[in-house]
Amino acid sequence: MAVYTHVPAEEMAEFLTRYDAGELLSAKGIAEGVENSNYLVETSTDRFILTLYEKRVNEADLPFFMDLLDHLAARGCKVPRFIADREGRRLQQLSGRPACLIEFLTGISVTEPKAAQSRAAGKALGEMHAAAADFTGTRPNALDLRGWHDLARKCGEHFDDIAPGLGKRVAEELAFLDANWPADLPRAVIHADLFPDNVLMHGDEVTGLIDFYFSCTDVRAYDVAVTHSAWCFDFDGSNYHPERAAALIAGYDEVFGLSDEERAAFSTLCRGAALRFMLTRAYDWINTPADALVTRKDPLAFLRRLDFYASADPKALLGA
Amino acid sequence: MAVYTHVPAEEMAEFLTRYDAGELLSAKGIAEGVENSNYLVETSTDRFILTLYEKRVNEADLPFFMDLLDHLAARGCKVPRFIADREGRRLQQLSGRPACLIEFLTGISVTEPKAAQSRAAGKALGEMHAAAADFTGTRPNALDLRGWHDLARKCGEHFDDIAPGLGKRVAEELAFLDANWPADLPRAVIHADLFPDNVLMHGDEVTGLIDFYFSCTDVRAYDVAVTHSAWCFDFDGSNYHPERAAALIAGYDEVFGLSDEERAAFSTLCRGAALRFMLTRAYDWINTPADALVTRKDPLAFLRRLDFYASADPKALLGA
Repeated sequence: MAVYTHVPAEEMAEFLTRYDAGELLSAKGIAEGVENSNYLVETSTDRFILTLYEKRVNEADLPFFMDLLDHLAARGCKVPRFIADREGRRLQQLSGRPACLIEFLTGISVTEPKAAQSRAAGKALGEMHAAAADFTGTRPNALDLRGWHDLARKCGEHFDDIAPGLGKRVAEELAFLDANWPADLPRAVIHADLFPDNVLMHGDEVTGLIDFYFSCTDVRAYDVAVTHSAWCFDFDGSNYHPERAAALIAGYDEVFGLSDEERAAFSTLCRGAALRFMLTRAYDWINTPADALVTRKDPLAFLRRLDFYASADPKALLGA
Repeated sequence: MAVYTHVPAEEMAEFLTRYDAGELLSAKGIAEGVENSNYLVETSTDRFILTLYEKRVNEADLPFFMDLLDHLAARGCKVPRFIADREGRRLQQLSGRPACLIEFLTGISVTEPKAAQSRAAGKALGEMHAAAADFTGTRPNALDLRGWHDLARKCGEHFDDIAPGLGKRVAEELAFLDANWPADLPRAVIHADLFPDNVLMHGDEVTGLIDFYFSCTDVRAYDVAVTHSAWCFDFDGSNYHPERAAALIAGYDEVFGLSDEERAAFSTLCRGAALRFMLTRAYDWINTPADALVTRKDPLAFLRRLDFYASADPKALLGA
């Protein structure tokens, strides 16, 4: 929620001369993308997002993200393309950082999704999966089951500072997932972070899927589970909204769909998704001072989801 | 440099229905205005800045700012108007904060002003002073000579943590200003903070004067001195640029101008301006932890300006 690298306006104007992108009229640092510096840039011809990659994004991953979004956009997905300069370069350096000029998409991110909006999100996810089917790029998921074990080890005894008994709960859940994680399901490139924040909408229509910086190769249905955990609960995980879940799955089924094997494993995939966000939030919680000016996201909001998934009727998760 | 109050998109869309302002298409929290939360809002008809006032702006002052900007805009100054809703209200409540919808102006803020840009800024300041001449609102300047004494007392012994001998230097400067401050010069409503950050430009043209939240009633020529201290040095105060100063004063003279009495006092006014920003920066420096995520502005950048003003040929400040 901050601009980390300040780009002087003169330097930005000069940067834009590399592109067929008009002349700089306005640039506002925007509070988006916890891990990057972003500017909303207006030129005499168009609007763009200018992103400077800070240390948490690995520059070596950028070509994967660029190729993926080009691939998806070419197949009609509403995703922001990376803009190439006159010499065809998409990746640049600006103010000492890797930097890209990116298509601007309008739309707002809903906070309390309605069923129709959940359905549209599910459909957009299905369209993305269909479009990614012939994408040949790959990127390992650092936050897979093995990565969750690593995170849990790093949090260690500090778990119980967040909630008494949390360390034991995590260990038990990891043991369950080790025994039950569906290793044989189809793998593909997934978004892996399709929260409402990352879906731009106009009314009940999706106008853009954004923030692909966690996208990676993993169990495809796990992407549906992540989206389920993000869309079908109140923000703090306190209430489950079955009508959103039914709509999300119906939207996904409309254009892509889950196989019987994926449906059978869906409850386990959702437990994994809830654990993944609980763990990264717990890690950030433990490693962020309470008086820091960044908002710490509550890990317990995803512990509540995990508890729900562990006790819910698996069929009910799919809206049956 | 942050959005303090997060407004859910649904709430923002509902808020906009009070206005003839189209339908919400996009909203980005922008990293502007250290003291408020700001969103760049796009609707089906226009773009706006949505500002939520955080605790450092006194709600009781808002009508003064609104009336001033209306007055200036009506006289052709390029300042952002406050937008009234269908019932004529400009001041609203949103997410528990006083909030206003404000005209969006394009333009970028230069970092290293060229002489032509300094001239345009001086001219815009002169136009503002001309337009404000028949404005009847008043607002005391909390950061006047008495306010500087208060700030210096609050910083007290901590001055010397910033630089050895700084406390003594401040006391001597305050004694000089007590003895020499020109109390009899014309007073008017001034901007009081016209840094390059607060001037939007397109090339060498001013497209907007913004951020009037320090505007107040004080010695009018002091506004020229503040602008001089902000535009005529390198960022860190290390180099004075006489060509910018000459251009700034020439631009101001073109439309408004300084009297002989104001010229005679200008050096003292500049010393006051430099001290004012040194003191507020020192106060923030002392009261902001070194590891906080906000950037602390260096008080010494204005001590260097103060040293320059205290030793420079007064005539040279005016480009003579």
